[in-house]
Amino acid sequence: MKARIVTLPGDGVGPEVLDAAVAVLEAVAERSGHSFEFEAQLIGGCAIDATGEPLPAATLEACKKADAVLLGAVGGPKWSDPQAKVRPEQGLLAIRAALGVYANLRPLQVHPALASLSPLKNEKLKHVDVLFVRELTGGAYFGAKTRTTDAATDECKYTVAEVERVTRRAFELARERRQHVTSVDKANVLETSRLWRSTVTRIAAEYPDVKLEHQLVDSMAMLLLTQPARYDVVVTENLFGDILTDEAAALAGSLGLLPSASLGEGKVGLYEPIHGSAPDIAGQGIANPLGAILSAALLLRHSLDLDVEATTIEAAVGHVLSNGPHSRDIGGKAGTAQIRDAVIAALDDVA
Amino acid sequence: MKARIVTLPGDGVGPEVLDAAVAVLEAVAERSGHSFEFEAQLIGGCAIDATGEPLPAATLEACKKADAVLLGAVGGPKWSDPQAKVRPEQGLLAIRAALGVYANLRPLQVHPALASLSPLKNEKLKHVDVLFVRELTGGAYFGAKTRTTDAATDECKYTVAEVERVTRRAFELARERRQHVTSVDKANVLETSRLWRSTVTRIAAEYPDVKLEHQLVDSMAMLLLTQPARYDVVVTENLFGDILTDEAAALAGSLGLLPSASLGEGKVGLYEPIHGSAPDIAGQGIANPLGAILSAALLLRHSLDLDVEATTIEAAVGHVLSNGPHSRDIGGKAGTAQIRDAVIAALDDVA
Ligand SMILES: CC(C)[C@H](C(=O)O)[C@@H](O)C(=O)O
Ligand SMILES: CC(C)[C@H](C(=O)O)[C@@H](O)C(=O)O
Repeated sequence: MKARIVTLPGDGVGPEVLDAAVAVLEAVAERSGHSFEFEAQLIGGCAIDATGEPLPAATLEACKKADAVLLGAVGGPKWSDPQAKVRPEQGLLAIRAALGVYANLRPLQVHPALASLSPLKNEKLKHVDVLFVRELTGGAYFGAKTRTTDAATDECKYTVAEVERVTRRAFELARERRQHVTSVDKANVLETSRLWRSTVTRIAAEYPDVKLEHQLVDSMAMLLLTQPARYDVVVTENLFGDILTDEAAALAGSLGLLPSASLGEGKVGLYEPIHGSAPDIAGQGIANPLGAILSAALLLRHSLDLDVEATTIEAAVGHVLSNGPHSRDIGGKAGTAQIRDAVIAALDDVA
Repeated sequence: MKARIVTLPGDGVGPEVLDAAVAVLEAVAERSGHSFEFEAQLIGGCAIDATGEPLPAATLEACKKADAVLLGAVGGPKWSDPQAKVRPEQGLLAIRAALGVYANLRPLQVHPALASLSPLKNEKLKHVDVLFVRELTGGAYFGAKTRTTDAATDECKYTVAEVERVTRRAFELARERRQHVTSVDKANVLETSRLWRSTVTRIAAEYPDVKLEHQLVDSMAMLLLTQPARYDVVVTENLFGDILTDEAAALAGSLGLLPSASLGEGKVGLYEPIHGSAPDIAGQGIANPLGAILSAALLLRHSLDLDVEATTIEAAVGHVLSNGPHSRDIGGKAGTAQIRDAVIAALDDVA
């Protein structure tokens, strides 16, 4: 097949990890006779520097025409004044909204070779296999904001339709997994959470084969630590998802290798590692590219329907995790290029 | 000294743990010649059953006249429909607001005898000694809410004055500890967080002896797991504090023994264990009363200026943790009364 992929390297280590992911995609294309065309565009801090805008119109246009978008990371100390009018993160929020990618999938598993890196005791990690489905285009992230000298407000808003579509996505995904959905809210305090809970409960009736459980966000922050293996699909609103997925990433002990896929109704998906721009190590060629490479695998699966190729990349990454080389963040010494080459070499071993 | 303490046993295990805490306070009073007068009032589900209101006027009146308020827990399956008009949690939110207790202090330490209960590896727990200062009377908990058939909203609002007072409290507390404050917000997305951050930064200048660090809430959810010993005082807004303190409680592995103190400008403080009403074990006499007993110690320290007596209770609890008996939640077999008696007996050992 032919596919057009827009890359948004962004800031910090973004360009480095994206280079590696593109190289892996090219190696896969070569091996399986596909043809991927890549087009790089600006987003975030580098876009602000070049154009004054965190999401230039040309970037958005290219993304809308593409089959999929692969993003590195945005932000860095150069643009980090939270009071500034124009900030790199605005580019990220704007592209999510413009592409309508309301469901952010963050799968979490702990590779046996990495269990020792987790702050959690090993027995807690056994069988951890969670798929977070974070609502990505609603809530306080996109609500009305006000600011005076004396006060500020953020409005968190959810419509029933917004909750329905992300809930359906979560239940569809649960059907192909262990048939269990945990919906997280703060229904004892928030009105949006009460709407969330009643909508999720109603949609769940369409999926009698899937079990639904509700948890309050504060309890869930605990349960992720005490019973992480209990969860299958976890669906929640934007801000709670932001917090809980980072907590979950930390418990896996391996932030650098976690991918994400953001999906909407259309076919254009947005794929990005969940790590940030890591300005402290940018430009040194030592960033772990596995989060970006696994995001590229999700891209193949969800936007291009290339499930076999996606699984091949995931198996190659598993092979590298089992046999090395390892990057510094997971206790090794290998640089970005070395990991990239090892994954590409492993494509043949696992095929 | 003479003091009037209103007790609000509430629901579930609330009455059981509060009985134990009151017995310890009475034992302390006897030993040190103080006289504490206790008056029990209704709150939460039991108040709804008796009066139709989660916070009856008589309760509020008694609390306002008291020197301090000791609360058990509210809520339970009987009143758990989140769509109900009247809910037990409303009583809790209403009493916090009515008493103006804007600073919720949640100290977290891991007793060596309990390190094995934590989901975290032991080396991560060494030297964990964090004091959370959660803003308790603002934010989305108390903002305007709307609900139609199609949509719902919650407004998160903070005034500069609200942020200033809780920030000052955090810095004052840090002065008596390790002179380090971590302020947690989501300033890359929320307007209230940008107001929070600029206000905290400005107030910090009044405390040149205390170091200030800002963290985003998602990063903080990670850092609590990976570097828990790094934090001294952590100050944050209401909802972030709800989530992060529960995460922190879970990492300590011992929810049943964590206390909290909610303080305002006046002298009346509200003291409560951070555990909930635990309906599954209510009425069996097996709840761990140490969270309530340690909350009583905070009451002595913060509302009655009885620091020596507070420290004596804390030492007695430490003695029981070191030597047993232990309740079921921490791997023992002792019931509530046995733990209560052991703490009271230990008051003499540690005095
Ligand atoms: C950079 C920031 C705006 C973003 C978010 O909060 O969504 C990030 O934390 C994430 O989770 O992708
Ligand atoms: C019961 C609930 C309303 C409450 C809160 O969210 O504040 C509780 O979780 C707490 O932390 O004290």
